[in-house]
Amino acid sequence: MALTATKKQYIDPKITIVGAGPGDPDLISVKGVNALKEANVILYDALVDERLLAYAPQECIKVYVGNPSGDENFSQDVVNQLMVDYALNFGCVVRLKGGDLFVFGRGYEELNYAASYSIETEIIPGISSAISVPGLQGIPVTHRGISESLWILSGNDSRGELSPDLKDAARSNATVVVLLGFDRLSEIVSIYQSLGKGGLPAAVIQSGSMANEKIAVGLVNTIAEVSEEKGIDNTGPVLLIFGSAVSLHHDFQRIRRFFELPEYRD
Amino acid sequence: MALTATKKQYIDPKITIVGAGPGDPDLISVKGVNALKEANVILYDALVDERLLAYAPQECIKVYVGNPSGDENFSQDVVNQLMVDYALNFGCVVRLKGGDLFVFGRGYEELNYAASYSIETEIIPGISSAISVPGLQGIPVTHRGISESLWILSGNDSRGELSPDLKDAARSNATVVVLLGFDRLSEIVSIYQSLGKGGLPAAVIQSGSMANEKIAVGLVNTIAEVSEEKGIDNTGPVLLIFGSAVSLHHDFQRIRRFFELPEYRD
Repeated sequence: MALTATKKQYIDPKITIVGAGPGDPDLISVKGVNALKEANVILYDALVDERLLAYAPQECIKVYVGNPSGDENFSQDVVNQLMVDYALNFGCVVRLKGGDLFVFGRGYEELNYAASYSIETEIIPGISSAISVPGLQGIPVTHRGISESLWILSGNDSRGELSPDLKDAARSNATVVVLLGFDRLSEIVSIYQSLGKGGLPAAVIQSGSMANEKIAVGLVNTIAEVSEEKGIDNTGPVLLIFGSAVSLHHDFQRIRRFFELPEYRD
Repeated sequence: MALTATKKQYIDPKITIVGAGPGDPDLISVKGVNALKEANVILYDALVDERLLAYAPQECIKVYVGNPSGDENFSQDVVNQLMVDYALNFGCVVRLKGGDLFVFGRGYEELNYAASYSIETEIIPGISSAISVPGLQGIPVTHRGISESLWILSGNDSRGELSPDLKDAARSNATVVVLLGFDRLSEIVSIYQSLGKGGLPAAVIQSGSMANEKIAVGLVNTIAEVSEEKGIDNTGPVLLIFGSAVSLHHDFQRIRRFFELPEYRD
């Protein structure tokens, strides 16, 4: 370790924040892979598929920094400090982040912290789970004549609460995607029900794009029950989708027949 | 050409819809590159960087299918039919799409059309410009204490009009990103002004992530003028961003001093 530090100490420090994408390791960008190939240090979190670490040079130091949504051993302050310390001592640090960099991902906070030490920074965005995970399941977040916009919110905002914007979102015609919201599913369902939207199509997807993916498709009124039937829990990232676009999922045909809902036509 | 057709006729038809990302060719996913490497035919549009075609095998047929937002020679019907015809005659077709697959990208329509011919389909999502392009410019679409949600809309909906959701979006606290909306900038500005939001930070980005990228940063009241000063036009994809998150862009410091606005603190 001491040898590596000595060898690298003339290299300029640099921090590259790389979005790993929703889960499937092949959904990382070519640019992200190139950054990993040149890394002296990689700081990766629990949402990252460890197969991505194989792109790194053999001598690269790989540091696990926990679960971004609440590992007390790796608070945002600790991760920020590790990032800077490693860059100053070893040169090229890649902060490899699962999930979104900029949608409740704190990518800008990490970028800002690095910049406050005058360390060169670079951002390599990843594929956003909020759009790609529904899309991979055959739920387009927008679709002509069905949904004309997309509203992405968090179930766990900066105060650890459901986003205050959720009530407005439920009232809107947008497709609503809630990240980090599974624990508040019943609370969100109540909001929709209080607006008379219990019959709106809804879906819950766990571990989207990964081998152990699970999906529940239903209506606002039934989605909590269907999620339980499908064994969805918080052991992988979960996202909630509310809106007519969910009716395009093939599982919805059965629901349509059961409730005798009208057919959607392209 | 006839030889190729003969050689490929025993290969099962397959259509893979690949998102190329916002512009920078290195922002395509590893999975997208792998699909290109196995393509017998690639159908690509005007938003795709042609350097991506170099991943294809030498014998691959590359077909340009115009500008997705309005080339009369390549209507969606024509593209759909080409996709199916090439798959039935040549096997593995990659439909390489610039911009978003599922956010006003009609990816689902293409998928559905292919499925209606019982052709095997696959989706490989790309990096969404709506999130990555602001992020690359140092504008995080969400940021703790600044913006708790993101609403993505189109300036050019299924009826060729500004999304009817835009008025609700302007009223909301979400960061609002408008794709395909540059022609309607003054109309959108009027909506914000009518709500007393002329002082809200706003930005316009053209050709995000590409070498010829341009950005204008201002307030709702000034953004049309700043965009003109910066020479922004419709020759590349343009997106509009409205909301406090824009105030995190480094160009905003000058605006803050000029208008004597309070400093944002992390």
